[in-house]
Amino acid sequence: MSFSITPIGGVEEIGSNMTLVSTASEDIIIDCGLLFPYEECFDINYVCPNFKQLDVKRVSSLVITHGHEDHIGALPQFLAHFPNVTIYVTNFTLKLIQKKLAELNISFNFKIYNSVSKLVFSDIDIFPVHVNHSIPETHGLIIQDKNKDWGALYISDFKIDLHATHEAPIDLNKIQTLLNECKKTAYFIDSTNILFDGKTPSENDLNYDLSQLINSSNDRIFITLFASNIHRLNFIAQIALHAGRKIVLLGRSIRHYFESAFESGLINLDPEKFLDGSQASSTNEKILVFVSGCQGDFLSALRRFSYGEDTNFKPTPSDLVIFSSKVIPGNEKKIYRIYNKLSEFGAQIITASDALIHASGHPGKDDLKILLSNFSPNYYFPIHGESYLLRKHFEYIKEHFPQVQPQLIYNFSQVKFLENKIEVSSSPKIEPILIHGKNLEIERSQISQRRKMATQGAVFLTYLKKSKKLEITLIGLPLSASDLLENLKKKLIKQIDNDLSGREDKYFIDQVKISTRQFFNNFLGYKPITELHLIDG
Amino acid sequence: MSFSITPIGGVEEIGSNMTLVSTASEDIIIDCGLLFPYEECFDINYVCPNFKQLDVKRVSSLVITHGHEDHIGALPQFLAHFPNVTIYVTNFTLKLIQKKLAELNISFNFKIYNSVSKLVFSDIDIFPVHVNHSIPETHGLIIQDKNKDWGALYISDFKIDLHATHEAPIDLNKIQTLLNECKKTAYFIDSTNILFDGKTPSENDLNYDLSQLINSSNDRIFITLFASNIHRLNFIAQIALHAGRKIVLLGRSIRHYFESAFESGLINLDPEKFLDGSQASSTNEKILVFVSGCQGDFLSALRRFSYGEDTNFKPTPSDLVIFSSKVIPGNEKKIYRIYNKLSEFGAQIITASDALIHASGHPGKDDLKILLSNFSPNYYFPIHGESYLLRKHFEYIKEHFPQVQPQLIYNFSQVKFLENKIEVSSSPKIEPILIHGKNLEIERSQISQRRKMATQGAVFLTYLKKSKKLEITLIGLPLSASDLLENLKKKLIKQIDNDLSGREDKYFIDQVKISTRQFFNNFLGYKPITELHLIDG
Repeated sequence: MSFSITPIGGVEEIGSNMTLVSTASEDIIIDCGLLFPYEECFDINYVCPNFKQLDVKRVSSLVITHGHEDHIGALPQFLAHFPNVTIYVTNFTLKLIQKKLAELNISFNFKIYNSVSKLVFSDIDIFPVHVNHSIPETHGLIIQDKNKDWGALYISDFKIDLHATHEAPIDLNKIQTLLNECKKTAYFIDSTNILFDGKTPSENDLNYDLSQLINSSNDRIFITLFASNIHRLNFIAQIALHAGRKIVLLGRSIRHYFESAFESGLINLDPEKFLDGSQASSTNEKILVFVSGCQGDFLSALRRFSYGEDTNFKPTPSDLVIFSSKVIPGNEKKIYRIYNKLSEFGAQIITASDALIHASGHPGKDDLKILLSNFSPNYYFPIHGESYLLRKHFEYIKEHFPQVQPQLIYNFSQVKFLENKIEVSSSPKIEPILIHGKNLEIERSQISQRRKMATQGAVFLTYLKKSKKLEITLIGLPLSASDLLENLKKKLIKQIDNDLSGREDKYFIDQVKISTRQFFNNFLGYKPITELHLIDG
Repeated sequence: MSFSITPIGGVEEIGSNMTLVSTASEDIIIDCGLLFPYEECFDINYVCPNFKQLDVKRVSSLVITHGHEDHIGALPQFLAHFPNVTIYVTNFTLKLIQKKLAELNISFNFKIYNSVSKLVFSDIDIFPVHVNHSIPETHGLIIQDKNKDWGALYISDFKIDLHATHEAPIDLNKIQTLLNECKKTAYFIDSTNILFDGKTPSENDLNYDLSQLINSSNDRIFITLFASNIHRLNFIAQIALHAGRKIVLLGRSIRHYFESAFESGLINLDPEKFLDGSQASSTNEKILVFVSGCQGDFLSALRRFSYGEDTNFKPTPSDLVIFSSKVIPGNEKKIYRIYNKLSEFGAQIITASDALIHASGHPGKDDLKILLSNFSPNYYFPIHGESYLLRKHFEYIKEHFPQVQPQLIYNFSQVKFLENKIEVSSSPKIEPILIHGKNLEIERSQISQRRKMATQGAVFLTYLKKSKKLEITLIGLPLSASDLLENLKKKLIKQIDNDLSGREDKYFIDQVKISTRQFFNNFLGYKPITELHLIDG
């Protein structure tokens, strides 16, 4: 076997991307992302792939393809386990990582790569390939073994932007050249946007509508977007300045990416054209305000502004609020609430349904056609998507490109590149790690307790055996349940006197808990979580 | 003033529809719906309009426009307050209500109406108008005062289905005739589908694709849809029987609506063509299974089936699963999880993105054009929608129909029909009622306690003053927090000995709670909800 590729996260789900490339001498990891939890997990900050089963001695390197959180966000957890790994990263992505890890006092080893680098390992070489996406310096990776028996193209995130002017179009030529050198080839390809039948629009296609809107007569324009889309930030800022607007940055995320882009030289604007919030709130000049939080997050600047809670800016009927973004599935309610609040203030709202002001960073079906017309591999694996999208991607390839052999893999499926063929073996899934608060792991059993308290409330009891005192507190139950407390006490005291005195503690506690839960169930229709402190006193 | 119209629910939100029509002699209510909560409310079953401020002596009647839950679901709560009201209802809707209320042992007074009835009240007459929607026997209402100074058309839910064959098209003629009799007129119109630019498809437009799919070769077809769409149930059942399939009803909601439709004579099929689940699981015949739960609800038959948890049916790669439905915003994640699970079992999934198999029951912009070309009122009020949709509706009418005077109203805005004009006055909002478990009201303060326990866990302490015993239980905290318990105990005992002995109970309890919360905050980054039983023992 020359090498194997095993997804550890990011297949079956969108987010927490991590892939293991294993060779005879070492393990090389691709990406280290986090996932915002799919289920309503009660403020759980995020989910990261469970990399604890990896062998610390074998993991030599981590190659980061681009700077999105679902590719770099789990670095604090990862580096705690693998502090000596070498991280291969581009300049701008390094800036993003450094800013995050500096806050946590985490240091790390890194090597810079770019689109013409060759990353040389003992048994394989990895060639980064420039691709288009929604953040600068995104790369696909071509993995070759030293004999060139196999060439694998791995692109978890990309689109084909043939009209890009802010950067070069995807380097299809390099893909063709490097894979042509190899005897056998395989693709590992992004499934995110597979439900889209056409060609994903170019970032340039947005210029006209964005310009029209920013040149409108409103004194104040608020615009929200994915803050990591540095090119779009830059384009909008340029248009705004050209239209005589001053610029305001509202929210932590917008400032983080603007600063990183300034420091990396990706954005170069006159600092005098920027106002801070308090200056902007009292200015007579026309302004454009970049606002963090296009997904409606509770703590975001956009939510605060829309609810009328921002110190400097309240929505008014003369404001224009532009959503240059899409709704990530699951965030509909949060975002609709923001639309509703802004509507109640009378602000005008423009979304990507009203004008061409957002383009996906992922390939539609026609992008895949172009990719496959450039070079047709022997094998094909859909990655980066939930199971439904993987399957749709698989079905599309199978129907339209019979010459490639698509195959479904999931997290922990190992794809082995053998001498003349590919072998796929699956391993039992390892549940990802849930993180809450100060980067602490929290177990699923504890989340389950939280869910029970959230949906059924809690009852705390203390009983003193000798003095026969019973105290009961209800939390999160309807106030009408308090009227029942005297009855519950009588019932429990009677049960204790008749059946429980002298019984061992475990039995005593279980019986009181059962009676309490049953008592409330009769009244409420559900059983609260119940705890009893049974005390010899 | 001849009369006034005041929305109590359903404006600013979709769901919990209720509108007050107030005349000199009495109050007449239109609809009595519930809302599935917008926010993640921890299993709160539903929200109903707060009708407690209505005057029991004035409320004489309740007119139900159709049998959807967002129009009849709050009847148990409503009848508890207004047991003597007369409910005006059509035959099929009555059947639905009777089935629900019989389970709760609630009786009520009713009068049957139909599309040619005239509901005569002391000061006004109400004329039901047949409209198209997604459940049989849906009506708009025309309200006239006795002088015919004013005619108001109120349609909270409708579409214009000019090609309907399962029922008549909307009775535009009646609207025109009755409003032409009046000196001044106003419309109150559905905003649900206002973001849709075209004409909402006819229910008949689905026939071709549905037939093709049901005639496919798969031995088993599973189809999920909004179970109250009786016409579609009937159409699909007919096609399935014609294709030689037996029919299975899986899930409570599907059975409820099928039974009601059978009993009302709206569906008339040979009972021998139906199999129950256990018969169907062992049959060699081709089957079509109607499955409840197209919105992915946790307890639904569809979720159980998709997760492989149904007793009789497990998904297989030869199954076809059809979603003849749309995703209600907010349910995306639940439904995507079902797509993912079905994909992992290898079942083929067809949704309304793949074929024309769902039509909305609400008007797109072109439906409104038809409505307004039939009769053009003096005033126009968007209703039945969230604030954002109301505003979009308002803007659309203002731009394209300058002859009508659109005006935005919200819940508790009173529209007074004065001699020659309309006057709108707004009242402070009254929060709707939250219901959980056995139809019990639960207060917002209690939901807030649940949210805290869900996101921050709970700590339960008991302290005995005399014997100085301290017991602590953690619920829903990371297991690593248990390692800190000895430290916490030491710290609290020290605090009690040094600062709290002899202090009054309230101060004692507060200080121990503050220290406990702070202790965990240092470690976790958040403060658990904390309860202390302080006992003289």
